[in-house]
Amino acid sequence: MTITQTSQIDLDTVAELAAQLRVDSIRSSTSAGSGHPTSSMSAADLLAVLVTRHLRFDWDAPTAPGNDHLIFSKGHASPLLYSVYKAVGVVSDDELMNGYRRFGQRLEGHPTPVLPWVDVATGSLGQGLPDGVGIALAGKYLDRQPYRTWVLCGDSELAEGSIWEALDKAAHYELSNLIAIVDVNRLGQSGPTELGWDLDAYARRAEAFGARVLVVDGHDLSAIDDALGTAAEPNDGRPTVVLAKTVKGSGFSEVEDKPDWHGKPFPDDMADRAIAELGGIRDLVLRGPRPEPASADDATTEPAGVAATLPHYALSDEVATRKAYGDALVALGAADPRILALDGEVSNSTYSNAFAHAYPDRYFEMFIAEQQLVAAATGLSVRGYRAFASTFAAFLTRAHDFIRMGAISGVDLRLVGSHAGVEIGADGPSQMALEDLAMMRAVHGSTVLYPSDATSTAALVEAMASTAGISYLRTTRGAYPVLYEDGEAFPVGGSKLLRSSDHDQVTLVGAGVTLHACLRAAEILADGGVAARVIDCYSVKPIDADTLIAAVGATSGRIVVAEDHHPEGGLASAVTDALLAGGPTSLSLAHLAVRDMPGSGSGPELLAWAGLDADHIAAAARELLDR
Amino acid sequence: MTITQTSQIDLDTVAELAAQLRVDSIRSSTSAGSGHPTSSMSAADLLAVLVTRHLRFDWDAPTAPGNDHLIFSKGHASPLLYSVYKAVGVVSDDELMNGYRRFGQRLEGHPTPVLPWVDVATGSLGQGLPDGVGIALAGKYLDRQPYRTWVLCGDSELAEGSIWEALDKAAHYELSNLIAIVDVNRLGQSGPTELGWDLDAYARRAEAFGARVLVVDGHDLSAIDDALGTAAEPNDGRPTVVLAKTVKGSGFSEVEDKPDWHGKPFPDDMADRAIAELGGIRDLVLRGPRPEPASADDATTEPAGVAATLPHYALSDEVATRKAYGDALVALGAADPRILALDGEVSNSTYSNAFAHAYPDRYFEMFIAEQQLVAAATGLSVRGYRAFASTFAAFLTRAHDFIRMGAISGVDLRLVGSHAGVEIGADGPSQMALEDLAMMRAVHGSTVLYPSDATSTAALVEAMASTAGISYLRTTRGAYPVLYEDGEAFPVGGSKLLRSSDHDQVTLVGAGVTLHACLRAAEILADGGVAARVIDCYSVKPIDADTLIAAVGATSGRIVVAEDHHPEGGLASAVTDALLAGGPTSLSLAHLAVRDMPGSGSGPELLAWAGLDADHIAAAARELLDR
Repeated sequence: MTITQTSQIDLDTVAELAAQLRVDSIRSSTSAGSGHPTSSMSAADLLAVLVTRHLRFDWDAPTAPGNDHLIFSKGHASPLLYSVYKAVGVVSDDELMNGYRRFGQRLEGHPTPVLPWVDVATGSLGQGLPDGVGIALAGKYLDRQPYRTWVLCGDSELAEGSIWEALDKAAHYELSNLIAIVDVNRLGQSGPTELGWDLDAYARRAEAFGARVLVVDGHDLSAIDDALGTAAEPNDGRPTVVLAKTVKGSGFSEVEDKPDWHGKPFPDDMADRAIAELGGIRDLVLRGPRPEPASADDATTEPAGVAATLPHYALSDEVATRKAYGDALVALGAADPRILALDGEVSNSTYSNAFAHAYPDRYFEMFIAEQQLVAAATGLSVRGYRAFASTFAAFLTRAHDFIRMGAISGVDLRLVGSHAGVEIGADGPSQMALEDLAMMRAVHGSTVLYPSDATSTAALVEAMASTAGISYLRTTRGAYPVLYEDGEAFPVGGSKLLRSSDHDQVTLVGAGVTLHACLRAAEILADGGVAARVIDCYSVKPIDADTLIAAVGATSGRIVVAEDHHPEGGLASAVTDALLAGGPTSLSLAHLAVRDMPGSGSGPELLAWAGLDADHIAAAARELLDR
Repeated sequence: MTITQTSQIDLDTVAELAAQLRVDSIRSSTSAGSGHPTSSMSAADLLAVLVTRHLRFDWDAPTAPGNDHLIFSKGHASPLLYSVYKAVGVVSDDELMNGYRRFGQRLEGHPTPVLPWVDVATGSLGQGLPDGVGIALAGKYLDRQPYRTWVLCGDSELAEGSIWEALDKAAHYELSNLIAIVDVNRLGQSGPTELGWDLDAYARRAEAFGARVLVVDGHDLSAIDDALGTAAEPNDGRPTVVLAKTVKGSGFSEVEDKPDWHGKPFPDDMADRAIAELGGIRDLVLRGPRPEPASADDATTEPAGVAATLPHYALSDEVATRKAYGDALVALGAADPRILALDGEVSNSTYSNAFAHAYPDRYFEMFIAEQQLVAAATGLSVRGYRAFASTFAAFLTRAHDFIRMGAISGVDLRLVGSHAGVEIGADGPSQMALEDLAMMRAVHGSTVLYPSDATSTAALVEAMASTAGISYLRTTRGAYPVLYEDGEAFPVGGSKLLRSSDHDQVTLVGAGVTLHACLRAAEILADGGVAARVIDCYSVKPIDADTLIAAVGATSGRIVVAEDHHPEGGLASAVTDALLAGGPTSLSLAHLAVRDMPGSGSGPELLAWAGLDADHIAAAARELLDR
């Protein structure tokens, strides 16, 4: 394979490459029997110009710190992306033809970071640009490298509000290193897009959100080249949106600008005609500009190697776990410059404001835009930073699809949700997270933590800093007694046996606020002559199956689980999943959870109303004994 | 109580009312010890003008079809809303002072439809305006009544992408009956908003998204009156955004425009000074204009009273459940004019396009904006319509917070998610719903349905049409054999025992695609001399506990549950929750689920990879027998 590498690939050669990208997009999707050739063909000229003349990328070193970033927000155009990979010589024609969309292969239907040149998984539209904001934030404020983040967007996905959250934040943070290229081919999946080829309408919107807009004929190579050249130059601090008017299926006259060809590979005979019309199969291998060496003021920093000095809490002092989160984050920030914080404009509630005050250069305010909050953390993770993103736990549901995609991206997301459950009291159900444990547990590879006191919270925040994948910390609004002494270990996947004897008759399992109620319930039961074992299940996923199995074994299968959460998918679900996975099991379970729709009230009133206070837990335990 | 009702309440009286609203917002929040007086005071003038001179509302008949609608998208300003209710004579001063934010009372921290004048719950920002789009759609296209939908927005929430999805759709559908009043008080919770008092910036954005924009001094009653008068008049089809420059805490000099007063009630002494500055306590009761009688071309229609004729499917024919969804929806639409469909621009995948073709006037395309998709369905439900909203099941996670809030609103949402699980094959994990069952089960009061064949799908779609609360139908991409004959009943909460004998040794539970694998597994087991009971758990929530309990009782506690879903919170969780809720239980469970991150491949390849095919199910059953 002869690779031509130059920053001066001429436009005649680029035109050849564009034809090759179209042909390969057709060949790969036809060979796979599925895929999106027409959505690839509309953007082929854009990508041909970009990769040959503007994208600074060392294809032999995809993680080089100076590399530009390329995100296919319109992930369904994967045939085009993979054809680009062939064109730069990192994917073979054989792999393209026999690997695309096949079982066990890495050229998946939508790109994922299984491929070393892909930063984030795409395929849920409207996410690539928000993710790109995170990478661009890293480039401008943290890495301080001149790399650019290029995002190929579809026009259909501009209907997603998340795109506008992204442009808003890109303008707010003056991310002139972020360039969105919008492939305006006017045809969506089931019909024309809302705005069609009204590029002026798109331009007005993007400009109103603070972007510099360049409008271009997406099939005029010279015009594209000028636009991308302009886009790549530093400007006055605005992100750039290149609006490219394109034709879906461009290059094959039978399908150009025709509806009903979305997401359909061409049958063999059509593919043959298309390839013929495009001048046949080519095997150009060309590489464009490489990045400049990493600049001297590279701010990427490794931790000092010193352990964080976690905050101290005196036993029995009443401290909110959300407060301990803020304290611990500040402590971690002192020891590790990669630690960052982001918040959705509630930092004085989540206590991420402590970090913002201590390390303002490492705090990014995302205002009330939870999708962008998680997406920014995703992009920062791509660049190796350890961002903690916090808001009310209830509002993390707003970013569910971004969290789901984060798991597919394999990024490390550290999410912190405060104000869990009915415990919050007067604000009412809109502010009460009652489904967050179910949401976070069902995320692939996730870690779900729900501490009951300040000491364990601080330890778990430290653990999250080095936890891979999606980790989630659920914090509580109110202040509760410190239960653990400094230095106590809280391994992820562990639990704490807070009360046990060799004559326990029932096991009480709590986490967070209900753990305190379980401890009081055990005292009530003890007063009545019943010995109860109490487990602090601070690690909801993974969960400490051994301790749970031993406990129910010792207490004749009797177990009470109390959770400030809806009954489905939360703590009790985690507990019973673990018990039943252990083999044949006999259980007598009382499951206390929030089963009705709460209103306002005080925290204690609402916990009692939900049946989650000590009295209800003790009563449930006694009922098990009476069975 | 003397109620003054006139459409000509003069502005001097309005000024008195505005002072009263401020005083009552202060009094109620101070009495409750929590709440948002300053965010109420900034909008008091806006509301005083609106309710006295523009909002057409019959306070004695809150469900009157001609009533305007008033949504507090900034739900934290509930003291202002409740003070309005006092001012129109529907809430007493005693209730305001002793009920606000108290346990068991209806004046919750954020408004919910527990109150008869509240259409939708708010408190998760950025949702009131999208919900309003749904109501305005109903008004213009279905009710065909001249009512207007007024939405009070905060400026902070304009950072939510959902606001821009809403304006986009409002402009697309030419909803000149929708008026957003934005209280631009420039201060958020933790600090200044992103755009401060840059009303020009907001105006550019709103205009670019197709709105008519009116900028006004939010404390100039005459200017407000002019703006709202203009806003209320029909225009060329644009929604109106009134941008009101306001001062947070307006009316009390100690806090006006001061940060750090968000969400804090005034201490008693401050409250006293504030009330004195505002001229003391008042007890005006005033009512503004009432709606005109419902117009003659009222299009609100009741069902014809005829039962829908559901589609027929021949046994063993292979039909995708998503296809059956479309067929059934068309059949329902013929019988009931309240049936509507909405889709997120994938109607040719979900098969809602069948309805769109049959009843174009009752189909609303929401393009790729899943938050607005669910919000529009919410607003349409407020007006009594039975909207089915569909997209890929994976993308319903995008609307999780809207679904959660829909449950608090008590609306009926009919959600349909296609392309569930790894079964979809080549498109890869971004398009595979693997957490939707967990998400939907944890929604309060939800109904979760997952049929395996076309006949049961059609029956369940019919059941959804009259199901209260949030209901969810999970459909499958591929075509599978029809299992049930016409006329078979599929009650919500039921199941089907497809195979059983009096010597069954193990129970196999499936739903959707795995049910077919369970049936084949039972045949494999039978060939080996093992009798297996097979249950079609088409109703995941509520679930048929009796049948499950009887089955595990009959099979020595041995049960295999197979689900095309992540292991957490889905079908197996529903099954074990039901079994364990039944009392002391001995179980030997094999739980087959998607435990690793899938890639591309064919459906059968991926189901086998995940361990969800007949061979794996049979092997799991045999392993239980060997324990």
